[in-house]
Amino acid sequence: MVPSEIRALFAMVARPEVVSLAGGAPYVSALPLDAVGTMIGELVAGKGAEVLQYGSAQGDETLRELICEVMALEGVQGSADDVVVTVGAQQALDLITKIFVDPGDVVLAEAPSYVGALGTFAAYQADVVHVPLDEGGLIPSALRETLDRLRREGRRVKFLYTVPTFQNPAGVTLTTARRAQILEICAEHDVLIVEDNPYGLLGFEGEPMRALRADDPDRVIYLGSFSKTIASGLRVGWVLAPHAVRAKLVLAAESAILCPSNFSQLAVREYLLTQPWREQIKAFREMYRERRDAMLDALDQLMPDGCTWTRPAGGFFVWVTLPEGLDAKAMAPRAIADRVAYVPGTGFYADGGGRRNMRLSYCFPEPHRIREGVRRLAAVVEKEIRLRDTFGGVEHDGPGGVHTPGPGIV
Amino acid sequence: MVPSEIRALFAMVARPEVVSLAGGAPYVSALPLDAVGTMIGELVAGKGAEVLQYGSAQGDETLRELICEVMALEGVQGSADDVVVTVGAQQALDLITKIFVDPGDVVLAEAPSYVGALGTFAAYQADVVHVPLDEGGLIPSALRETLDRLRREGRRVKFLYTVPTFQNPAGVTLTTARRAQILEICAEHDVLIVEDNPYGLLGFEGEPMRALRADDPDRVIYLGSFSKTIASGLRVGWVLAPHAVRAKLVLAAESAILCPSNFSQLAVREYLLTQPWREQIKAFREMYRERRDAMLDALDQLMPDGCTWTRPAGGFFVWVTLPEGLDAKAMAPRAIADRVAYVPGTGFYADGGGRRNMRLSYCFPEPHRIREGVRRLAAVVEKEIRLRDTFGGVEHDGPGGVHTPGPGIV
Repeated sequence: MVPSEIRALFAMVARPEVVSLAGGAPYVSALPLDAVGTMIGELVAGKGAEVLQYGSAQGDETLRELICEVMALEGVQGSADDVVVTVGAQQALDLITKIFVDPGDVVLAEAPSYVGALGTFAAYQADVVHVPLDEGGLIPSALRETLDRLRREGRRVKFLYTVPTFQNPAGVTLTTARRAQILEICAEHDVLIVEDNPYGLLGFEGEPMRALRADDPDRVIYLGSFSKTIASGLRVGWVLAPHAVRAKLVLAAESAILCPSNFSQLAVREYLLTQPWREQIKAFREMYRERRDAMLDALDQLMPDGCTWTRPAGGFFVWVTLPEGLDAKAMAPRAIADRVAYVPGTGFYADGGGRRNMRLSYCFPEPHRIREGVRRLAAVVEKEIRLRDTFGGVEHDGPGGVHTPGPGIV
Repeated sequence: MVPSEIRALFAMVARPEVVSLAGGAPYVSALPLDAVGTMIGELVAGKGAEVLQYGSAQGDETLRELICEVMALEGVQGSADDVVVTVGAQQALDLITKIFVDPGDVVLAEAPSYVGALGTFAAYQADVVHVPLDEGGLIPSALRETLDRLRREGRRVKFLYTVPTFQNPAGVTLTTARRAQILEICAEHDVLIVEDNPYGLLGFEGEPMRALRADDPDRVIYLGSFSKTIASGLRVGWVLAPHAVRAKLVLAAESAILCPSNFSQLAVREYLLTQPWREQIKAFREMYRERRDAMLDALDQLMPDGCTWTRPAGGFFVWVTLPEGLDAKAMAPRAIADRVAYVPGTGFYADGGGRRNMRLSYCFPEPHRIREGVRRLAAVVEKEIRLRDTFGGVEHDGPGGVHTPGPGIV
């Protein structure tokens, strides 16, 4: 673990005049706060002896049953007995890595991949091997080649970590056809899959995608979270695991935190039982779609030639690739000086990749701020291009390094 | 990690006809639940955008300042910048062990010691070496002998783990004179101290004891918790650490859970800012003192000759030693059949000790239930003594083994 440069950056980003396209915080103010407050107040007053007391290490049973109903929306048929409630999906990642990974073991991850997962893998000294993705998500042929190569090299692959739907940071989604292929390739190589799915219900078109877990219950460990569909401050996530893994997870969770908070868990339970949560998710989706549109429109209109970006169909993020010779990490302080922030791509690679990339998030700022942010960013990029044309470009040969996530860039 | 026998036992203990003297759950129903509910409801309605959002990995700054005020009651002068908020003190224990302990390293712990700590030490493959205690707490001469021996053996001692005040499970408190000696011995041997102090404010007589941390800020890592002074279901604890350790703790916490729950943290912050928390702790103390008295009176009146027990001046627990030839672990199922439960002593030893011991807790049952529980327990012990006299006693040579804690036996 090393002190993160991103941390220092984020102190500056907190200034109100800066438009932050960096953070991954959901827009929780869109919740009906009065109704939620009343609900929670009555819950504590009426059931305080349970709400304020220790619970079981596995998590509240009724909540685990409700979680199964939520997962059913993406085709997952799981038993409440195989669900473990965790302190956000981050804790699930930590426990899974603790259980499976010995130092030097290989973990496969998309290139780019979620920074918080990379931080956890690094903490357990996993050797992260990236597999490229494109607009259709993880590329099956690349996965197969990587697994073949690692097998020839005699390396131990512990699992494939993937965010198949509305990926963080790339904003892309694994196609239906590829889902079947990924499952098949992992079955052939007998590799576990850790499917991290915090954004699956936040799609802007059509029905939710079918989760990988829906079609291979024995191979897939599924991570879910209420951070984006209800509220991140509750820190309630979960893992659905094959039965033998679940038992190990409960013991590891017990050792790590004794038990998750009943206060948070029963607030979620009550919310799911008494509030119109499906309608609220629909409202979130519509709000985020409007913000996604604002960002893509602004990028289309304002970004200089040579920049490309993904077009997310859900979730929080757009992944931008800068023209050759530009360095998004070196540019970040200059962007902040010009009052716009993003996350440099290097944080999402364990191998030094991502120097030409930026993650832009549209989840938190309102649409007019998103447009203003992109306007400022486009001007910064234009200046960088002029500098490159005058003084020559940057060579991308240095290591990028893994940063610990920082709650600001979830 | 092995499946815990205690877990199976606890399923039976949940039956209402059983008097449980096993659990370590605080009596949270003594809180003014209506007032707390109203406070939390208004907090969510009024500050939902903060309460329901991600926070920093280190924890809320105002809460950390308030934690310093709480610690000052036991003589601790700490800076909010050196406090890390954790998911109960259990997470602090986990993070400290993760940072300091490599497999095979020695951790010193009282004999007996807190089961949840032993579970965590086992998870990181620490070699726990016990140091005996008596009614005055950890015995300084025994600590010195143990450290001298380990030094001769060339063993690496990573830290001394101790619950100096109202110890779990023994109910004893380290005397003031011994506190100075323990600090001196650890300084001589350059050994860190992890001081776990969840019960310090729950003393039944006089002023709070002065924490070890108060007299050696550089050597002592201090763990605190609101589980017993406010409510266990919030899962808010903390660690106050020397500055260099604090930085490592924040990174480890970030990797493990991203950040602690703002929902829980700001509920505690609001409670400390707006509710009469000192008066509430006083009310808790008086309630627990009445229960302690009920237990000690009943033990004095009812327990057969040959049994001995500690006389706690605060906290939740009495530690009973059975006559020679009896086995508290073997007796536990028979006690449950006779509708009384306790925790067998073996759970509190990493080395097979504690076969003649039971932990009795008086924190949760009301006084008349405590008396009834002790009455049943005394009858069970009498039967065991008769069996021993008829068939001979048990030889205590088998290993006791470490159990993971189970939230029921905090």
